[in-house]
Amino acid sequence: MRAELITVGTELLTGQIVNTNAQYLAEKMAEIGVDVYFQTAVGDNRDRLLSVLELAKDRSQLVILCGGLGPTEDDLTKQTLAEFLGRDLIADPDAMAKLDHFFASRPTYHRTPNNDRQAELVAGSRPLPNRTGLAVGGLVEQGGVTYVVLPGPPSELKPMVQEQLLPFLSDGQRLYSRVLRFIGIGESQLVTVLADLIANQTDPTIAPYAKTGEVTLRLSTKSSRQELADAAFDQLEATILAHEGLADCLYGYGEDNSLAAVVVNLLKERQLTLTAAESLTGGLLQATLTEQAGSSAIFKGGFVTYSLEQKAQMLGISPELLRQHGTVSAVAAEAMAEQSRRLTGSDLGVALTGVAGPVELEGQSVGTVYLGLATEHGVISHKLTIGDRGRQHIRQIAVLHALNLVRQAICSDKTMV
Amino acid sequence: MRAELITVGTELLTGQIVNTNAQYLAEKMAEIGVDVYFQTAVGDNRDRLLSVLELAKDRSQLVILCGGLGPTEDDLTKQTLAEFLGRDLIADPDAMAKLDHFFASRPTYHRTPNNDRQAELVAGSRPLPNRTGLAVGGLVEQGGVTYVVLPGPPSELKPMVQEQLLPFLSDGQRLYSRVLRFIGIGESQLVTVLADLIANQTDPTIAPYAKTGEVTLRLSTKSSRQELADAAFDQLEATILAHEGLADCLYGYGEDNSLAAVVVNLLKERQLTLTAAESLTGGLLQATLTEQAGSSAIFKGGFVTYSLEQKAQMLGISPELLRQHGTVSAVAAEAMAEQSRRLTGSDLGVALTGVAGPVELEGQSVGTVYLGLATEHGVISHKLTIGDRGRQHIRQIAVLHALNLVRQAICSDKTMV
Repeated sequence: MRAELITVGTELLTGQIVNTNAQYLAEKMAEIGVDVYFQTAVGDNRDRLLSVLELAKDRSQLVILCGGLGPTEDDLTKQTLAEFLGRDLIADPDAMAKLDHFFASRPTYHRTPNNDRQAELVAGSRPLPNRTGLAVGGLVEQGGVTYVVLPGPPSELKPMVQEQLLPFLSDGQRLYSRVLRFIGIGESQLVTVLADLIANQTDPTIAPYAKTGEVTLRLSTKSSRQELADAAFDQLEATILAHEGLADCLYGYGEDNSLAAVVVNLLKERQLTLTAAESLTGGLLQATLTEQAGSSAIFKGGFVTYSLEQKAQMLGISPELLRQHGTVSAVAAEAMAEQSRRLTGSDLGVALTGVAGPVELEGQSVGTVYLGLATEHGVISHKLTIGDRGRQHIRQIAVLHALNLVRQAICSDKTMV
Repeated sequence: MRAELITVGTELLTGQIVNTNAQYLAEKMAEIGVDVYFQTAVGDNRDRLLSVLELAKDRSQLVILCGGLGPTEDDLTKQTLAEFLGRDLIADPDAMAKLDHFFASRPTYHRTPNNDRQAELVAGSRPLPNRTGLAVGGLVEQGGVTYVVLPGPPSELKPMVQEQLLPFLSDGQRLYSRVLRFIGIGESQLVTVLADLIANQTDPTIAPYAKTGEVTLRLSTKSSRQELADAAFDQLEATILAHEGLADCLYGYGEDNSLAAVVVNLLKERQLTLTAAESLTGGLLQATLTEQAGSSAIFKGGFVTYSLEQKAQMLGISPELLRQHGTVSAVAAEAMAEQSRRLTGSDLGVALTGVAGPVELEGQSVGTVYLGLATEHGVISHKLTIGDRGRQHIRQIAVLHALNLVRQAICSDKTMV
């Protein structure tokens, strides 16, 4: 089914609010296999809403309008849809009874004629009752197009969609997804490696998406059962991971997952503890780790050593060594990792030192980062050349690479099992 | 000027991401007095993008396209606009030089033909250089309509809009804004205090907006000159701050400002250094401080002391004291602040200990936080009851309150001048 969303509200056009309803509705439609081809935001304006409806009726079979059902003067979605369809607005008896009850139980509230509009529907609509508010929603068909009217407040929209609209619209088939999460490979490189597969994709489909420092692939298929979808995903995933180098870059699955969550869980599983000594990231790695609930099982504490003096003093590293090799060096990263591990008695110590910018440091360019990792087997270091991509980006990417170094060490080291 | 936004990306239509770019662009256009009448989200699809451009050219004078400038197969915004306008795509020499430099300095990255697309522009465009990324933006006029092409990643979009697009578009009358930033007062409380002023607002207008832990008031007025706008803002601001308690809560001005930036600048001005010992926030305060460029002038290093043992060992606090009073206590917060200050030789030491959740700790409920602050005059503590508002919220709010404690101490203490 070809669908489109029309979100109504001047506050969207002035940027006062973010259009989270469009995202929510789009996600829900995808879940039941309805393809949304257009989303339009339009102000509380009769003429412009009419022009959008005129377009929509020719290009979509399902038109979902959201917002503008309230009791104020500028709420005109239902009136405009009624005019567009050449129908009347009529009161829904259940919604009107709810309105009566609302005002009867609140004697201090003033009921205005505008309030009654909330209980009205385009004639011929199937009502969508509003469990958490007063504005009734509706669904009406004309000329082969289904028009749906929904309230704007998310607290009213979501229950109505979940409890009324989705069960009505879905019939057996729904969309399943599997999200593969990669680190250590750029989006363009991943897409080049998988070019043939992506060019010839049919079912499941493959959609790459880049976030800061990582890339995800979303596999999607329509199916009647989870098991059938999973079988299709398993097969496609195996084909993807057969490409050289990709299996090592796959760190996890799922929309709400993160590298930090994966690392914390790996450490928990193996009953290992991690500490850190951070310079350019200033505590960001430790803050990212401790975002995860239950991280106290794997993290006891660590160091933010920003200046040369504090690297020396807090970690017990010779200041001469740091001056000789520079604080932005493999030697510094290795010493920081090893000393943080030793001082806190942790199983692993990770260190980050580098140049977050905006200016270069010790003759090293912005975006140069050294990672150190100390384990019971010894200490290694790794140089990153992130480039001048802005202070925050550099720090975030450095943290992801450091977490990935920890992940790889745990996964590759059989003695850590 | 009648404008519309076209945001391009299938991930918008499937609800994978929220369209924050539409909100950002709408807000920026409102600021310079450009009226946005339509926002359309469309997938990475040539035919549908062409259909939206066809509509746009007849109803808008300014058409801003955002997204789809990347190096992958499905990025086709520039190609489609070129086709729509009957123009070629040509390489922008500066953008190509930047691309060359990027790959030359990263020998391990594979350059693919797709990458070159990022440096291309619709023929006849005025280039909009991308300071924080590789995809060049552009601005081209045809048939009385100005078409603007912008990158999708917010980290690239925002600098390009702020530094390139807005100065080009604004001329003569424009909308001026002053943003007042408050901490320590909720949005509903601020709105209640200012109810009369907000109800009777004319020019400048007043728009309150709540973010995590803080509230802003945006004053806006249209004017031909900055000086005229400033005079109006000065008068309204004085009226606002005459309300009891508000002057103490005002911590700064401006859209891109933050409490961390204000605190770092105050410390720099007074030539003071700050350290921290963090428990529940796990390094988030120090990461927030070091987000600010040049923070090394005021921050040498600090501690993340998550477990009781590391609070004792890293900070040299008696474990018996911590066990007796609890690690979530005023005593612990004060000892952590004082010891971090002493061990690093900093002027101020701030400490955070508390319960981020999801479960209670030492019989203290989720959202209970103790802040400690040590200065040359001694040490104080402050208890926060944030409530169970989710782990991340609690940590962020705790950091803001800790920074505000530092701000108030510096501002109130004449000896720190």
